[in-house]
Amino acid sequence: MKSALIEPWQERVSAISPLQPFWKEKARQRLREQTRPEGSLGRLEFCVERIVAIQEKEEPSVAKKRIILFAADHGVEAEGVSLYPREVTAAMVYNFLAGGATINAFARSSGAEVEVVDVGVDHEFGASAGLISKKIRRGTSNIRHTQAMNASELSKAIEIGWARAVQAKKEGIEILGLGEMGIANTTAASAVIAALTRTAPEKVTGRGTGIDDAMLQHKIRVIEDALRINQSHLTDPYSVLGSVGGFEIAAIAGCVMGAASHRIPCVVDGWIASAGALVPIQLNPSILDYLFFAHESEEKGHRILLEELDIQPLLHLSMRLGEGTGACLAIGILETAVRAYNEVATFEEARVAQKRQ
Amino acid sequence: MKSALIEPWQERVSAISPLQPFWKEKARQRLREQTRPEGSLGRLEFCVERIVAIQEKEEPSVAKKRIILFAADHGVEAEGVSLYPREVTAAMVYNFLAGGATINAFARSSGAEVEVVDVGVDHEFGASAGLISKKIRRGTSNIRHTQAMNASELSKAIEIGWARAVQAKKEGIEILGLGEMGIANTTAASAVIAALTRTAPEKVTGRGTGIDDAMLQHKIRVIEDALRINQSHLTDPYSVLGSVGGFEIAAIAGCVMGAASHRIPCVVDGWIASAGALVPIQLNPSILDYLFFAHESEEKGHRILLEELDIQPLLHLSMRLGEGTGACLAIGILETAVRAYNEVATFEEARVAQKRQ
Repeated sequence: MKSALIEPWQERVSAISPLQPFWKEKARQRLREQTRPEGSLGRLEFCVERIVAIQEKEEPSVAKKRIILFAADHGVEAEGVSLYPREVTAAMVYNFLAGGATINAFARSSGAEVEVVDVGVDHEFGASAGLISKKIRRGTSNIRHTQAMNASELSKAIEIGWARAVQAKKEGIEILGLGEMGIANTTAASAVIAALTRTAPEKVTGRGTGIDDAMLQHKIRVIEDALRINQSHLTDPYSVLGSVGGFEIAAIAGCVMGAASHRIPCVVDGWIASAGALVPIQLNPSILDYLFFAHESEEKGHRILLEELDIQPLLHLSMRLGEGTGACLAIGILETAVRAYNEVATFEEARVAQKRQ
Repeated sequence: MKSALIEPWQERVSAISPLQPFWKEKARQRLREQTRPEGSLGRLEFCVERIVAIQEKEEPSVAKKRIILFAADHGVEAEGVSLYPREVTAAMVYNFLAGGATINAFARSSGAEVEVVDVGVDHEFGASAGLISKKIRRGTSNIRHTQAMNASELSKAIEIGWARAVQAKKEGIEILGLGEMGIANTTAASAVIAALTRTAPEKVTGRGTGIDDAMLQHKIRVIEDALRINQSHLTDPYSVLGSVGGFEIAAIAGCVMGAASHRIPCVVDGWIASAGALVPIQLNPSILDYLFFAHESEEKGHRILLEELDIQPLLHLSMRLGEGTGACLAIGILETAVRAYNEVATFEEARVAQKRQ
């Protein structure tokens, strides 16, 4: 799948540079001066240091928050790998647009916007208020038998994600959360992660919507077949993404690139969003500087992946929903930490005695 | 320390009954009907079930949120167990009242109120706007040499905490977070927890504000001395609390009792708040039904304590600040979960297909 279509992406990804120590040190200095024992906010302090260094601002802000939810269908759904039928993807898109899904309630609670992008749902929505229509095709091809998409479709999906980050930047969005919807997409995500990390599918394949042991064994076999059928294409991260991924997973990869490139802190939701993020991470590990991992999903491969990347996610709540719900919770915590960074008095300002020497 | 003064508390604590299975089952039913895979909100679902059963309401709410911050000084501060001098307790109280501390920024970010209660700070605040003045004494006695407080003072401290829960109920508060401020109070909390769990002080004593190895060894010896000196009094949870605890720790114990008794969900912050909560928990384990543990503190004994109580806290962020900061973050997450419980459409309402049978 290496093609001229992919080259511009390679250039953009390579151009993303690590965060400047200057800004991290500046943030660390201010954190140390604030009225609390040094380091007592734990991992929140590392998060704040990175947000300051991403935004390169004395007074960072993540108050303007947007969850982008990429939706698409999957040919592999035909293999019976999910508890839910394919039409649930479209039905849930309508649910998102009507504000009735879990992510909508989460977003209302934390003051975040929700943007829903159709990159490949198997349904014609017509003119649906609020939907961003970027359908590439009505679902990927079945990865158990062939490549999910061709190089042109892959490039389009990445472009869609990238463009949403650019648009967010234009609109003054200060932090992004990336989520997804797509029946059978834990199967595609597991295939992508198994291939990218060279791990046996049985180690990284989980129960998705809650399948039983027999279905799980079947799902593992489907993924093994998909990796075997596509073996000759699994030569680089892009080709893995196009061969066994999904349109929403590729859009997430593109959006991660776009967010890092435009210096927007970006919160990766769970298992499927992590599969999308892993592609640009492998192409340029500096991208990790711009990413926050929301939570450790209940999907069993997630812990393995996070450990391999040496990432400590913000939350451990045994969630496995997707939709950007974990990202939304994590963004709330980051916003609180940033508020504290901006607002807490220094020892000098508050006339509080410093620690004994 | 068993005395007639303690008996009324014993009666009130014994009267707290476990949550009704009826309400938990009702909540579980609604969660199952909502448009997402069963169980996919993980531990948040258990939290919501308990909130529904505590409030006994079809439509629960934790939108009216209050952090109560009990402040007091400690005689054992004279032993040099903290990095900070005693006067920092009073200085931080002024900082809380001025809105300049970390808990203030956290509370503004999540829309919570902060109530500051002086139960024993070594400072005369005069008429300080916003401070609830309930000073029992200007700090406990030094537990390395004697009992922290007498039975009358213990009863007063519990009463102060209980009364704050009653007042919160009157004012329509729907969830409480309990925090504290008091230089040297990790020493008192460690002594209380070591005594109540019959664990060696070295296992449950941590670095508090960030002391080095030498100070940590000294702190452990101080706690060992305190437990030895007070040994004959360490016969029941109340006496442990009065003999080696602190005024703010006893007020937290009382506030936990009051919150459970008045069916207010109550979020316990970190190490010190856990010491306060452990007293009523040991007197009547049903109280656990009403409590949420915000986070696993970096203070090393906290994990041991939480495991012993079989509690999974909501957050793991290596925080060790106190002030109710962890409780404030956790309350934000609970509020989001409750919003979802109230607002997410059912499969039927949203016309989303149920899972395949």
